[in-house]
Amino acid sequence: MSDAVSPLAQPFPAIPLIAGVTPRVARAGYKDWGRCDLTYVELAEGTAVAGVFTRNVCCSSEVELGRANVGQGRARALVVNAGNSNAFTGYRGREAVDAIMAQVAAHLGCPQEQVFVSSTGVIGVPLPKDKAEAGVRAALVAQPCGWQDAANTIGTTDTFAKGALATAIVDGRTVTLGAIIKGSGMIAPDMATMLGYIFTDCAVAPGFLQELLSAANTRTFSCITVDSDTSTSDTVLAFATGRAGNAELTGFDSPGADAFAAALGDVCMQLAHLVVRDGEGAQKFIAVEVTGAVSNESARKVGLAIANSPLVKTAIAGEDANWGRVVMAVGKAGEPADRDNLSIGFGGVWAARDGLPLGDYDEAPVAAHLKGREIEIQVDLGLGEGRATVWTCDLTHGYISINADYRS
Amino acid sequence: MSDAVSPLAQPFPAIPLIAGVTPRVARAGYKDWGRCDLTYVELAEGTAVAGVFTRNVCCSSEVELGRANVGQGRARALVVNAGNSNAFTGYRGREAVDAIMAQVAAHLGCPQEQVFVSSTGVIGVPLPKDKAEAGVRAALVAQPCGWQDAANTIGTTDTFAKGALATAIVDGRTVTLGAIIKGSGMIAPDMATMLGYIFTDCAVAPGFLQELLSAANTRTFSCITVDSDTSTSDTVLAFATGRAGNAELTGFDSPGADAFAAALGDVCMQLAHLVVRDGEGAQKFIAVEVTGAVSNESARKVGLAIANSPLVKTAIAGEDANWGRVVMAVGKAGEPADRDNLSIGFGGVWAARDGLPLGDYDEAPVAAHLKGREIEIQVDLGLGEGRATVWTCDLTHGYISINADYRS
Repeated sequence: MSDAVSPLAQPFPAIPLIAGVTPRVARAGYKDWGRCDLTYVELAEGTAVAGVFTRNVCCSSEVELGRANVGQGRARALVVNAGNSNAFTGYRGREAVDAIMAQVAAHLGCPQEQVFVSSTGVIGVPLPKDKAEAGVRAALVAQPCGWQDAANTIGTTDTFAKGALATAIVDGRTVTLGAIIKGSGMIAPDMATMLGYIFTDCAVAPGFLQELLSAANTRTFSCITVDSDTSTSDTVLAFATGRAGNAELTGFDSPGADAFAAALGDVCMQLAHLVVRDGEGAQKFIAVEVTGAVSNESARKVGLAIANSPLVKTAIAGEDANWGRVVMAVGKAGEPADRDNLSIGFGGVWAARDGLPLGDYDEAPVAAHLKGREIEIQVDLGLGEGRATVWTCDLTHGYISINADYRS
Repeated sequence: MSDAVSPLAQPFPAIPLIAGVTPRVARAGYKDWGRCDLTYVELAEGTAVAGVFTRNVCCSSEVELGRANVGQGRARALVVNAGNSNAFTGYRGREAVDAIMAQVAAHLGCPQEQVFVSSTGVIGVPLPKDKAEAGVRAALVAQPCGWQDAANTIGTTDTFAKGALATAIVDGRTVTLGAIIKGSGMIAPDMATMLGYIFTDCAVAPGFLQELLSAANTRTFSCITVDSDTSTSDTVLAFATGRAGNAELTGFDSPGADAFAAALGDVCMQLAHLVVRDGEGAQKFIAVEVTGAVSNESARKVGLAIANSPLVKTAIAGEDANWGRVVMAVGKAGEPADRDNLSIGFGGVWAARDGLPLGDYDEAPVAAHLKGREIEIQVDLGLGEGRATVWTCDLTHGYISINADYRS
C-alpha cells in the first residue's frame, strides 16, 4: 500500500463472516515488502463459481486457466499472489500456476481445476515456484483473517483497502455478499491489475451465477476506465457457497432471484467505483452520463470515448467546463452522433443544447460543481433511447509522477 | 506562438517561390494577438486540389464545405483563420464561411466552391463575420509574404513554424513542393487542430492528386498521434498549379508520376513528423515499428495502440525500457497477436523474444538509447508480413500543465 491515500478513498465496510468462506493470508516474499503478499480463501464443498476476465490477448497463464476452469462451475479455493503478475513468462509461468493448483488440490482432496489462482505484480518474471509453495504451505495452516486483511494483501500500488457489502432476502433467508478488489487499470511492473472477488453464502447454480455476473459486468466493470490501458491479468470471480440454506437459484423464475441479482449488481458497482477512486493521481471522480444514443451499447462507447480522452480528463483536472473537448470526444467515438442535436452539461446544467452553446448559460453553478470531488458530465445525443453511464477519474500531474517519475 | 520552443523543433526550410502560388497575411483580430491571424493564398487559374479531412463526426462547417467542394477538383484560393475554429457554431458558423468564400470569389471572379477555408482556435463561438471580412479585405491587397510568415500566421499554440520542401524531376522539369502545417492533435479552445497545406507547380490531374494524397495520408498523417484525441477540424489540402510546364500527370503511367508521388509522400511525412515534434509537452520523438502482423493495416492498429497508451508514453518519458507495458498495449489492440510469438525491442536491441524476456538482455545500450530525443520501439508479432511505423511523443508533466493548469 502506498503512503498517500487517494482523496477519493472510502472506508472499508464491516463485512461479516460469510458461511463457507475462510480467508487466510501469508508471506511468500515475492517482493521485499514487510507484509503478507499471498491470500488463500478456502471455500466449502459445492461452491459455485463464475468469472469475467481481461480481453487482452496477451493474458497471463492464470487468466487462461481461470477462463478454462470456470466453465466446470465449482470452486474449492482461491489463491492470489501479489508482487509478481507471472504475465509474459511462457511455460515457466504456467508451471508455477499448475504447482500451486496441485498443492492446494492435494491439501483439500479436490480436483485441481477447482483451485483458482490470480497473480498481480511485476511482468516477465516467472512466479518463483519455491516461494509460492512455501507461501501456500504457510497460508494453509494460518489463522483465518478478516476481510480488510485480505483486501490489503491482494493490493499492490493501491492506496486504500477496497471492499463492498450487500445483503438480500432470498427464499426467506438473508444472504450476504462480501467482496474485495484491488487495482486501478494499470499493468505490472507497476502492479495495478484489477482483481476482484465476490463471496456469498447464497445458493446459486453456476450457470445462473455466470449469467448474473456477466450482466453486472457489462454495466459496471466494463464501464470504468482510468487511462484506457487494459491489464493482461484483469479478473473478477464470484463464489457462492450455498450455506445460507435457500433453495438454489437457477434462473430469474427462482424466488428471490431478482433480489440477489440486484445485490450482486450493487456489489459490482461498488467495486468498480472503488477502482476508479484509486486511479493513479486521481483527484476527482467523474460520472459521464450519456443519453439519447441509438442504443445502450452505442451510449457506452461514446461514454468511454469521453472518459478516455486525455483532453477531457485534463480539463476536469483544471476545473474547466470545457464542453468543446466533450464535443470532440463524442465526434471521435465512431458512433452515430449529430453535431446539431448534441447537448452537453456539467452537474446538471446544460452548457450547450442542440448543437449550440447556450447564450444565457450561467457558468457560476458549473464552476462550483467542478471544484468538487464528484463530477458529472451529461451528454445527450438527441438520436434515440440508448443510455449508459461510464466512470473515470481526472488526469493529473500525479498520474505522470507515478508512471514516469521513477526508474525501474 | 508559445514562448517555450519544443526541444524537438526543426528549422524552417528555405521554401522558394512556387509558380502560381501567392501567400499573403493580414490581421483580422480574432484574438488579442499582436500578430497576423489570417492567411490568404491565391492560386493560378486551373490549379488542381485534393484534400483529406478529420473523421470526427462533429466536424466544422469549414470541413463539411471543403470535403464537398474538393470533388470538383479546382481551387483559386485558400483562407485560413487562426484564433477561432468556428466549430460547433451551427448555421451562424456556416454563414461566416459562406461570406468569406463569396468575398474572395467576387474578388477573383471565380466560382465560390473554388475558395477553400479553414479555421482553428476557440470552439463554439461563431467566426465574427465583420472581422473576417475586414481581414480578408486587407489580405487581398497585402504584399505577398514568405512561407515562414504564412506558417507562423496559421499557427496557434505551436511553438515553432513548420514547413517542408521537396523537389522531383517530372517530364524533364524540376517541380517544387512546398508545404506548411500547424497543430499537434489537440482541439480548440486550445487551438491545436492540425491544418496542413501542400503547394506545387507540378501539373497533376485532380483525381490523380487525390489518389496520391490519400495514399500518402494512410502512411503519414494517419500514423501519427499525440494524445489519441481527434480534432473536429483537421484538414490537409494539396494544390497543384501546373505552372512548371510538365505534361499533366494523370496516373502512374504518366512520365515522372513515380517521382512526384515520392516527393509528395516525402513532404507529407515531413509535415506529419513536425506535428508530433510539437506535441504538447513532448520531450521525446518516438517511432513505433511493428512487423510480423497479419496485414499492414493490422500493424498500423497495433502501432497506434502502443503509441496511444498513456502507460507506454509515460514509461518513455521516464526513460524506462518497460517492455511489459508494450506487451499490454499490443494485447489490448484487438488485433491478431500471440503472446508466445511476440518480440519487443528498444533502439534495435531486443528485450524480449518469442514471448520470453531475454536472459542475456543487455540493458546498457537500451538505457543509453532511451536517454536520447529520438526513441525507437520495435515490435515483431511473428505472425505474418504486415508492417507499419507509427510516430508519437512521450507523455510528460508538460502535457498536464498545458491542458489542465489553466483557467479559461
